[in-house]
Amino acid sequence: MATRLIPALNRILVEKIVPSSKTTSGIILPEKLNKLNSGKVVAVGPGARDRDGKLIPVSLKEGDVVLLPEYGGTEVKLGDKEYHLFRDDDILGTLHN
Amino acid sequence: MATRLIPALNRILVEKIVPSSKTTSGIILPEKLNKLNSGKVVAVGPGARDRDGKLIPVSLKEGDVVLLPEYGGTEVKLGDKEYHLFRDDDILGTLHN
Amino acid sequence: MATRLIPALNRILVEKIVPSSKTTSGIILPEKLNKLNSGKVVAVGPGARDRDGKLIPVSLKEGDVVLLPEYGGTEVKLGDKEYHLFRDDDILGTLHN
Amino acid sequence: MATRLIPALNRILVEKIVPSSKTTSGIILPEKLNKLNSGKVVAVGPGARDRDGKLIPVSLKEGDVVLLPEYGGTEVKLGDKEYHLFRDDDILGTLHN
Amino acid sequence: MATRLIPALNRILVEKIVPSSKTTSGIILPEKLNKLNSGKVVAVGPGARDRDGKLIPVSLKEGDVVLLPEYGGTEVKLGDKEYHLFRDDDILGTLHN
Amino acid sequence: MATRLIPALNRILVEKIVPSSKTTSGIILPEKLNKLNSGKVVAVGPGARDRDGKLIPVSLKEGDVVLLPEYGGTEVKLGDKEYHLFRDDDILGTLHN
Amino acid sequence: MATRLIPALNRILVEKIVPSSKTTSGIILPEKLNKLNSGKVVAVGPGARDRDGKLIPVSLKEGDVVLLPEYGGTEVKLGDKEYHLFRDDDILGTLHN
Repeated sequence: MATRLIPALNRILVEKIVPSSKTTSGIILPEKLNKLNSGKVVAVGPGARDRDGKLIPVSLKEGDVVLLPEYGGTEVKLGDKEYHLFRDDDILGTLHN
Repeated sequence: MATRLIPALNRILVEKIVPSSKTTSGIILPEKLNKLNSGKVVAVGPGARDRDGKLIPVSLKEGDVVLLPEYGGTEVKLGDKEYHLFRDDDILGTLHN
Repeated sequence: MATRLIPALNRILVEKIVPSSKTTSGIILPEKLNKLNSGKVVAVGPGARDRDGKLIPVSLKEGDVVLLPEYGGTEVKLGDKEYHLFRDDDILGTLHN
Repeated sequence: MATRLIPALNRILVEKIVPSSKTTSGIILPEKLNKLNSGKVVAVGPGARDRDGKLIPVSLKEGDVVLLPEYGGTEVKLGDKEYHLFRDDDILGTLHN
Repeated sequence: MATRLIPALNRILVEKIVPSSKTTSGIILPEKLNKLNSGKVVAVGPGARDRDGKLIPVSLKEGDVVLLPEYGGTEVKLGDKEYHLFRDDDILGTLHN
Repeated sequence: MATRLIPALNRILVEKIVPSSKTTSGIILPEKLNKLNSGKVVAVGPGARDRDGKLIPVSLKEGDVVLLPEYGGTEVKLGDKEYHLFRDDDILGTLHN
Repeated sequence: MATRLIPALNRILVEKIVPSSKTTSGIILPEKLNKLNSGKVVAVGPGARDRDGKLIPVSLKEGDVVLLPEYGGTEVKLGDKEYHLFRDDDILGTLHN
């Protein structure tokens, strides 16, 4: 049974981050604070081809924490884990502390 | 009666993999685990032409195990076998153990 | 009365193959086996122009046996024969024994 | 009163051929035989410009007998004659005996 | 009060020709003969830019008598005169005696 | 409070001209004469980028009197003045006496 | 918990300016005066790729005060602050005193 997916073209595979309701030191976060729809990049495709057939690499890399669009993304189950597949240019940005 | 199809342009011919309900050692897999919509590439087209008429080869090859989109694909019966025809860029990615 | 058509641009003229219900040696084929929507190419256009006006030849040639899309194609009657006109890139692939 | 039209860009002016119900030697043609929607090219435009502004000449010429699409075409009355204006790439092909 | 308009980009300004119901020698024209939707070009724009920003001049010039499409065109009143503004590539062709 | 706007890309800022109902010498203009939807250009953007990223300057300049399309335009209030924002290629033409 | 977002491609992050109902010297502004839908740019993406894969930098920079379109923009909550994400070419212009 397949447990690894290499996304095609400019697709990227993301594992959604379930917002924790407490800070690391245990303080309960107000509900409205942790509503960020984000995820971690686990695999990226080689990139899409421009009109001249030249490959344009994906702008994100494994390990990036990204802000996801409200809609879209294809659900993919590999083994017992759930991932989502997005196109590189659907990602809104990278998140940093 | 034709038994072989060479896909045109950037189309690829896929034989769908029917997810087995048991592991190789016979353990019954929980139903939700083996829902992957996947298939094996049995033939690929020469590729599509970019705007300058240059041929851009297909990014997949015979034998690749691929993750298929939920919708789309044209059903093709050759002899008593059933295949599906996709466009190269509809394929979500390649699956690996 | 015109009996020959040279298709324009990247169009191709196809004579549909009516699937025979028996093998060459007379064995009756199960109905579901011979449902292939195919045809023989009888004429091809010169090709379409890319954005720079350069002619991109059609990828099919007279005599090719082709797999036709489920829909589309323009019916053309020449003399007492019936043909169908397709665009080159609508053809799904070429069929071989 | 204007009696001549030079089509603009890649348009062509066509005079529809009314299918005759008899062969030249007077034999009455079965009705289904002469349903071809065809016409004669009476004038062609200079051609359209590609994205670099370069003129791409029309692929048809005065005198060509052409197969017309089922729909489309703009009716134009010049003097007491009726013509139809098509875009070059709407024409399905050229007809020959 | 403005009485002159220089059309922008590839627009052209046209004064519609009201079809006269008599020939120059006074003979009354059958109604169906003079239904031509035509006009005279009174001003043309500099032209549109192609994708590389290069200006592609308009293919028509002041004084041309043109065949107008059935629909479209923006009505413009300058002083007490009524004109219509079209895009260059909407014009069907030039009319000649 | 902001009182000046530099339009982005190929947008232009226009102050609509309210048609006066009298000529400069005081003669009352017939109502139908002064219905021209026009305005004065007060600011222009740097221009839009073509597909190669090259900047294509706006074809209009501050002070031009322009004919506005019947629809479109974004209303912008700066201080107590009302302006309208258009794309350069929406403007129908420049008006002159 | 992420508190900083680097927008992807040609997106920009904007903090909306809540129009104050008084001038700096305390005079109450008439309600209709301060209806400007504006914001301050807090982060910009690297830019989008043109068709040849070349990066076209964003035309705005951090600190710019911008006029926002009436609709569009994606709401993003970082920590307890609310921002909006726009595409570079959706911004109507930059505001200046």
